[in-house]
Amino acid sequence: MKIVIIGGGAGGLSTASNIRKLDKEAKITVITRDENIAYSPCAIPYVLSGQVDQFQDIIMHQPEDYLERDIKIITRAEVFEVSNTENTLKYRLLESDSDSSQELDYDYLVIATGGAPFTPPIEGTGLEGVFKIRTIGDGETIKKWAKRSQKVVVVGAGLIGLEMAYGLKKMGLDVTVNEMLPQIVPRSLDPSMARIVQKYLESLGIKVILGRAMEKITGQTQVEGVVYEDEVLSANMIIMATGVRPETKLAKMAGCELGRWAVKVNEQMQTSVPNIYAVGDCVEVTDAITGQPTQSPLGSTAVRQAKIAARNIVGKTSNFKPVLNAMVSKIGELEFGSVGLTESTAVHNGLEVICGKSRALTKARYYPGAKRIDVLMVCDLKGRIVGCQIIAKERVAERVDTMALAIAKNVTCQELASTEFSYAPPVSMVIDPIILAAENACEKLKNSQH
Amino acid sequence: MKIVIIGGGAGGLSTASNIRKLDKEAKITVITRDENIAYSPCAIPYVLSGQVDQFQDIIMHQPEDYLERDIKIITRAEVFEVSNTENTLKYRLLESDSDSSQELDYDYLVIATGGAPFTPPIEGTGLEGVFKIRTIGDGETIKKWAKRSQKVVVVGAGLIGLEMAYGLKKMGLDVTVNEMLPQIVPRSLDPSMARIVQKYLESLGIKVILGRAMEKITGQTQVEGVVYEDEVLSANMIIMATGVRPETKLAKMAGCELGRWAVKVNEQMQTSVPNIYAVGDCVEVTDAITGQPTQSPLGSTAVRQAKIAARNIVGKTSNFKPVLNAMVSKIGELEFGSVGLTESTAVHNGLEVICGKSRALTKARYYPGAKRIDVLMVCDLKGRIVGCQIIAKERVAERVDTMALAIAKNVTCQELASTEFSYAPPVSMVIDPIILAAENACEKLKNSQH
Repeated sequence: MKIVIIGGGAGGLSTASNIRKLDKEAKITVITRDENIAYSPCAIPYVLSGQVDQFQDIIMHQPEDYLERDIKIITRAEVFEVSNTENTLKYRLLESDSDSSQELDYDYLVIATGGAPFTPPIEGTGLEGVFKIRTIGDGETIKKWAKRSQKVVVVGAGLIGLEMAYGLKKMGLDVTVNEMLPQIVPRSLDPSMARIVQKYLESLGIKVILGRAMEKITGQTQVEGVVYEDEVLSANMIIMATGVRPETKLAKMAGCELGRWAVKVNEQMQTSVPNIYAVGDCVEVTDAITGQPTQSPLGSTAVRQAKIAARNIVGKTSNFKPVLNAMVSKIGELEFGSVGLTESTAVHNGLEVICGKSRALTKARYYPGAKRIDVLMVCDLKGRIVGCQIIAKERVAERVDTMALAIAKNVTCQELASTEFSYAPPVSMVIDPIILAAENACEKLKNSQH
Repeated sequence: MKIVIIGGGAGGLSTASNIRKLDKEAKITVITRDENIAYSPCAIPYVLSGQVDQFQDIIMHQPEDYLERDIKIITRAEVFEVSNTENTLKYRLLESDSDSSQELDYDYLVIATGGAPFTPPIEGTGLEGVFKIRTIGDGETIKKWAKRSQKVVVVGAGLIGLEMAYGLKKMGLDVTVNEMLPQIVPRSLDPSMARIVQKYLESLGIKVILGRAMEKITGQTQVEGVVYEDEVLSANMIIMATGVRPETKLAKMAGCELGRWAVKVNEQMQTSVPNIYAVGDCVEVTDAITGQPTQSPLGSTAVRQAKIAARNIVGKTSNFKPVLNAMVSKIGELEFGSVGLTESTAVHNGLEVICGKSRALTKARYYPGAKRIDVLMVCDLKGRIVGCQIIAKERVAERVDTMALAIAKNVTCQELASTEFSYAPPVSMVIDPIILAAENACEKLKNSQH
């Protein structure tokens, strides 16, 4: 069985590894445009901040490591033609001078082409000093440029934008984050929670400009500033963290049906072309709460999808379930995470909801080093939990996971309020902040019913 | 409505506070033998270790704080008679010279008498230098004595025993822990996990003697040593951490039915006497997996029971559910926790089980400061998770809580293996150690079926 995988990120390589675990004989080839494989793009900001020493550290494997498991990796290669009638594809090496293209045939094709940074159509994005972030190469270029810059504007206050802002601040730059919407992290946090993160960023000296879109970037050859309706900010560096769009070109060329956001797949991660599968940022998934198609551009999602795709390709059945988009980020000392719908998204989807809130501590009150923790729990009017956001300087990620499981199992706030949690003074409060938020949600529900 | 509560620990005082929240008029009186109230007995070892400054810090409230909420607290008072026909009780003040007893009548009585340290019937336990641990008074006496001691033997390697051993080691003593059974933490950990904790203790210089029961304690007026079949250990201090027995005397006197282990209560925390409720370490509860009566001597359990008792007393219905005994402890840097059944307890209860295991990291491999984490997941032969144990130097408690919810919701290892978890390099691995243990359990299940 010949399997060709396009894409050397988490989705592509996990698919390769998972197939190999299940099938020792399959011929597996991975083609990627990148020169590096098996690295963690979400770790790029941590190299800038110095929390991780160097870019080399975030590369988990080299092509040779895969060769040992009989997985062939072709780097710096671009696929430019896919034929689903012939079951062949053509690629060319990006560094090669000659135009000699090469051909591969496959029994199964896996499209794991990920996403490409989206650049808004404004003037000046082509100037020197304007950067996107996707690959280690991007990270290296940014780091070099940052070393001789003073002022940077990060455009977009999603996770990557904020993590980059922190990294550049730690490098000593004067950092401004500019978000078009009236709050930071609009996809994952509601305004009251977003403000907590914003205050923390501001306490580190990062400036935050909300609710304003820049009109253009100025400069001759190099960036000199950004222009707003009523203000000009000087800057010698711009980071465009304005989102990522699924790379669907090859899937389309291969005849795979596209959905509302990206490549359409069934629960087996199979596209509309039976022997073509797709995983990772280039596919769309189903939202577990709304039932609507959505995106889940997370490494953890890609890895889970890869496992499902691999199992189905080797003839075992496994289904990928609708997602809750459980996410977590750590900026400096602050961890924040979210799972399910925010209040805003819930309302946008026509749900009537209430929000249970708690502000408590991560340890017993008297135990030294206890940190403040904030929880916001979104519940529908029957009490079913549909989302949760958590912020603290420790122990957020696992609480998000607990809530992911609670939401997946349709737990109500009433039920959660009487759920058993572990307790010891150095690691928790006798009533967990999650329980307190669930209790608060129960009270609000009662009030909303009167 | 007159409510009298016997016991000033977590169970008794939480019941008082919860009743007050629901009923502004009720006359609430709490009687306790202790001179302090509202403190965290599980924090006593942390004062010895110096992690918490002083005993005063672990007292959360003074009697006056309760008086402000119109809850009357009578300290250093012993109830010596309860009449369930008259609905009255008699108590005397322990410090009073005169023998004048006082009487109180009640509409509802709440028994929250907790447990008393159990002392095995061996020679020498009455010598000076032999201590039990239950109250702050015990903690203060131990701390004073420890300051002029060199060698201590802690008898019993449950949580309190180990936490005390660590505290005394931090005070500079030569510490030996002696457990009669062949492993430490026998109630909550299986042998392979217990060994990890034991190795950590030994790395701190704490000696561990397993599988041997001492025969007597020697000394004239003060402790001089402990005697085993084939060895004598010298010691100027002995801590008896040999377990706690429910204090059921008053309940019995009041005519409440006792169960196998302690006071019997229904789901409303009501005893066999309709207007007498009981909460905390003095009651027995139902094990969620086996359906058998069991004990749950945990502060978190007492607090949850108090809420249920309070609601039922004021006429709202609420049920206390069977327990999983989710627990966590932190000794030095090491956190370990457990929920549900251990493999040993499962087998003892006639369950056929397999154990999924993982040894992984608490952060991405390349992220500095990643700690080793060990997970043991006990599943029945259909894959239903019945227990889980976790050990690491960070982020254990919340994972125990996730597993508590998983077990409560009858999640199987197959289902958990495809569950969504959050991921960011500084706080987790892209595949959580819990998922890895679930995957390992799935493999073992498959093998067990061939």
